[in-house]
Amino acid sequence: MALARPEQPPPQASWWGWGDPERVPTLPAGVRQLLVESLGVREPVPVERSLIDFILPASRLDSDADAELVSALGAENVLIDDEVRLRHTRGKSTPDLLRMRVCDADDAPDLVLLPGSHAEVLEVLRICSYRRIAVVPFGGGTSVVGGLQPRADDYSGVVAVDLRRMNALLELDEESRLAVLEPGLRGPEAEALLRARGYTLGHFPQSFEYATLGGFAAARSSGQASAGYGRFDELVVALRLATPRGTIDLGRAPKSAAGPDLRQLFLGSEGALGVITSLTVQVRPTPAVCVYEGWRLPSFREGTEAVRKLAQDGPVPTVLRLSDEAETALNLARPAAIGQSSQSAGCLAIVGFEGTADDVAARRAGAAEVLRAAGGTIDASAGETWAAQRYDGPYLRDALLDTGALVETLETATFWSSLDRLYQAVSTALRESLSALGTPPAILCHISHVYRAGASLYFTVGCAQLDDPLAQWYHAKEAASDAILSAGGSISHHHGVGTDHLRWFSQEIGELGMAVLRAAKAELDPAGILNPGILITDREPPLSIG
Amino acid sequence: MALARPEQPPPQASWWGWGDPERVPTLPAGVRQLLVESLGVREPVPVERSLIDFILPASRLDSDADAELVSALGAENVLIDDEVRLRHTRGKSTPDLLRMRVCDADDAPDLVLLPGSHAEVLEVLRICSYRRIAVVPFGGGTSVVGGLQPRADDYSGVVAVDLRRMNALLELDEESRLAVLEPGLRGPEAEALLRARGYTLGHFPQSFEYATLGGFAAARSSGQASAGYGRFDELVVALRLATPRGTIDLGRAPKSAAGPDLRQLFLGSEGALGVITSLTVQVRPTPAVCVYEGWRLPSFREGTEAVRKLAQDGPVPTVLRLSDEAETALNLARPAAIGQSSQSAGCLAIVGFEGTADDVAARRAGAAEVLRAAGGTIDASAGETWAAQRYDGPYLRDALLDTGALVETLETATFWSSLDRLYQAVSTALRESLSALGTPPAILCHISHVYRAGASLYFTVGCAQLDDPLAQWYHAKEAASDAILSAGGSISHHHGVGTDHLRWFSQEIGELGMAVLRAAKAELDPAGILNPGILITDREPPLSIG
Repeated sequence: MALARPEQPPPQASWWGWGDPERVPTLPAGVRQLLVESLGVREPVPVERSLIDFILPASRLDSDADAELVSALGAENVLIDDEVRLRHTRGKSTPDLLRMRVCDADDAPDLVLLPGSHAEVLEVLRICSYRRIAVVPFGGGTSVVGGLQPRADDYSGVVAVDLRRMNALLELDEESRLAVLEPGLRGPEAEALLRARGYTLGHFPQSFEYATLGGFAAARSSGQASAGYGRFDELVVALRLATPRGTIDLGRAPKSAAGPDLRQLFLGSEGALGVITSLTVQVRPTPAVCVYEGWRLPSFREGTEAVRKLAQDGPVPTVLRLSDEAETALNLARPAAIGQSSQSAGCLAIVGFEGTADDVAARRAGAAEVLRAAGGTIDASAGETWAAQRYDGPYLRDALLDTGALVETLETATFWSSLDRLYQAVSTALRESLSALGTPPAILCHISHVYRAGASLYFTVGCAQLDDPLAQWYHAKEAASDAILSAGGSISHHHGVGTDHLRWFSQEIGELGMAVLRAAKAELDPAGILNPGILITDREPPLSIG
Repeated sequence: MALARPEQPPPQASWWGWGDPERVPTLPAGVRQLLVESLGVREPVPVERSLIDFILPASRLDSDADAELVSALGAENVLIDDEVRLRHTRGKSTPDLLRMRVCDADDAPDLVLLPGSHAEVLEVLRICSYRRIAVVPFGGGTSVVGGLQPRADDYSGVVAVDLRRMNALLELDEESRLAVLEPGLRGPEAEALLRARGYTLGHFPQSFEYATLGGFAAARSSGQASAGYGRFDELVVALRLATPRGTIDLGRAPKSAAGPDLRQLFLGSEGALGVITSLTVQVRPTPAVCVYEGWRLPSFREGTEAVRKLAQDGPVPTVLRLSDEAETALNLARPAAIGQSSQSAGCLAIVGFEGTADDVAARRAGAAEVLRAAGGTIDASAGETWAAQRYDGPYLRDALLDTGALVETLETATFWSSLDRLYQAVSTALRESLSALGTPPAILCHISHVYRAGASLYFTVGCAQLDDPLAQWYHAKEAASDAILSAGGSISHHHGVGTDHLRWFSQEIGELGMAVLRAAKAELDPAGILNPGILITDREPPLSIG
């Protein structure tokens, strides 16, 4: 059935950090000094990287359940050893990493399952439903919102359903420019299979190297080139899901008036309504030309105006991002250069173009005109530097955590007319909440994705770690999330809801919206085994605002 | 609160036909002869246009209900006279018109309500819920899929909730290019309010002159300029709904990763899940230049390739349509010229551009290159003729029904690689089903909307009327709908589901998909008063295919 599969298994991520430990940068000599001076960072907090120090909870599943799952999947696809369980524990948020760094594996799943087909996923869901075993669909394990950490105390166990064996390119429809792909393919694997045939998805989020297609869809990922290629939820035209109640197939046309668009109920459903087992996704011919430029704008406000003009009147670049003054000054748009003095004041925009030579030339010239009119000057090297380091941010976080800093990101979106208010509200909430704890933060922000009607804001926060950095971060995160809701923003533009955002998501869609999701879940997952506590609240009414 | 409202009430449509009776064309002398010769059309069937001949069923609502509704809305907004009830009976499909032409008003609502605010709609839903009165949300009354004809025999009555009083432009956010509009505004009214401020929605479906914004959203309308401006469901970024359980507010950003996109559950919900009481919709600056061209392509197949190339590689025109050989020959793309011999063979494409002068010039030149390479030649007058007559199709249907012909349209969509198969399957089903009844049809088709991944097909069918034209049409419609499903198409690209498509919609989304909609409805509308029998099946499992 499969047209192609990756020839090599993908690289394995470290359990204590983002990905490849070899890529954690050695920070320039002056950086720790700078962190001590500007943020009051105290002792280095090096990570314990030995498995010996972890004590995993005993697997709660009884031998009957184990035997039944082995019978369904084969013994080689039912994994119980500690290292595998550890590698399927939680995701990659800073709180997740902080817990791993102190050898806390309390949330380890009891078993890791590797189904190889839609039918096998259905069978796993059948078994887990009647045995009341919680199921965590597991792709790349890169959630930063607690999306892999169900609340399953009153279940008979938790299994991680790792989809890595479902990694085929099933079909390529060149006439419709569609590819049918399995959910366990990681970003680079999917790109390699498509590029060998002349196509690209054009989906490059910062998690690209580790995250999977199923995860992109389940969490509504948005890539760095979304201005040109669209968000992942805009690329998906058809979906197949396995649910405890059976199979769902959706999508017979790009768009339809046949009722509500149910695809949009399952995109963003974060494994709580079903397991995505195949995706039909729009592809494009591999671009002949890719150009990434840096532009210096006089201020974040003027830069925002220019970026809005491009998003609304065009020409729309393929990549369009704008750092605020603080992020530009700290050079966080160029992680390897952190701490080096900034080349110039103002705000750095990254403006990229991918396409045919003619198309790129025309859009580039048009965009340059808009940026120059806004007082922009080109920064020749910044674009290519950004492109070379576009996936390095999370490694920088690993290095900074080692130094004793607390670093995390959060993001939101709103309409253009509310963007400044949202920017100010979140900045203020982060500054005040962390300063109140005695750890005044550095707060950096960029506009990461643009639309005709609005944009997203991506914040990076850094401060000194306190003795209980989890409590410290949750205090700031709660203040920032409250500020997002009060300022009219969405609690997430591209990270998702998981457990971390559930309280604010409930406010965002309201009690009736949550009641509808709960009703859908009760219909599809009557035993409530799919990611309990993620995305959807229990019967209790959600907390009210304020 | 309102920024502006229309100064004049909108024109009233005739009850026996599409809209303004003055605009029903007098067909050229040869047309009836042609219909007799080519289709075997028999006697003219003129319409009875006197109210005297209608006998409306007595209103079923008791005086308590009436008094309570009067108390909620004021006596002037609770209408019971026969003409008003008649004007709220069913929609504008050919079966709807055929029933009106024989003075069948059996489906008339018992009352017509005119709420003036979100709060009043909530109150109406509260009253109707506990009294078990079915509610038909009513905008322009232009449904062509039975969307205004609930199955309400076991209810205590039916009220049409006409939203005409909710017709304000509430806000205009020029920075975000968003307008907040009430649902009862008709297309031309909304355009006039926006154009006075320099903006346009760019939404021009054939129903434009009579349909309302609420209807556009509730039925996922798609306009003739959708290639440039997007479908209506793509224009909507926020929604407020009144439901029997309370208010739902959705949409804090253009796009979000905060869970499933619940806006997409209510867009296309056809009044079965709630009543849309305000919409936040993307607007654009009024275009400086609008150009519409006709292009003759050698064949439908070659034309389709050219249209696909434009949709996939650009430049994408604002309007892009392609008639097949039969439609081109009959000049149905130019209704006033029906029956005149075609200027040349091949297929007519309508290619329109709206925007700034530079943008239009660049896209027009680029598109011309693609069309010329496909063997296209420009037809100077066809574009402007199409634009002048773009809303006239339904009037032509009125005139043809008068002559004794049976004329109706249907539409579908799929991906490009399946488009020819779908075209052949539906054509064959219509031809064979009507020929089997002794009325071989003329079948015309055009590609009406294009996407990167696929397109819609819009069919017009004409044949001689039999003595029972309703049974005759349902026979053909059933065959065509079965063919759409079998060929992988969606049962509707832009008309919606209503009652007419419910059986096939159930097949399209499957039993589990329907179960999810049913669960959502049970949550929002526990008494089941909102458009019963429309969009969502009762508890019984849907019919299986074939």
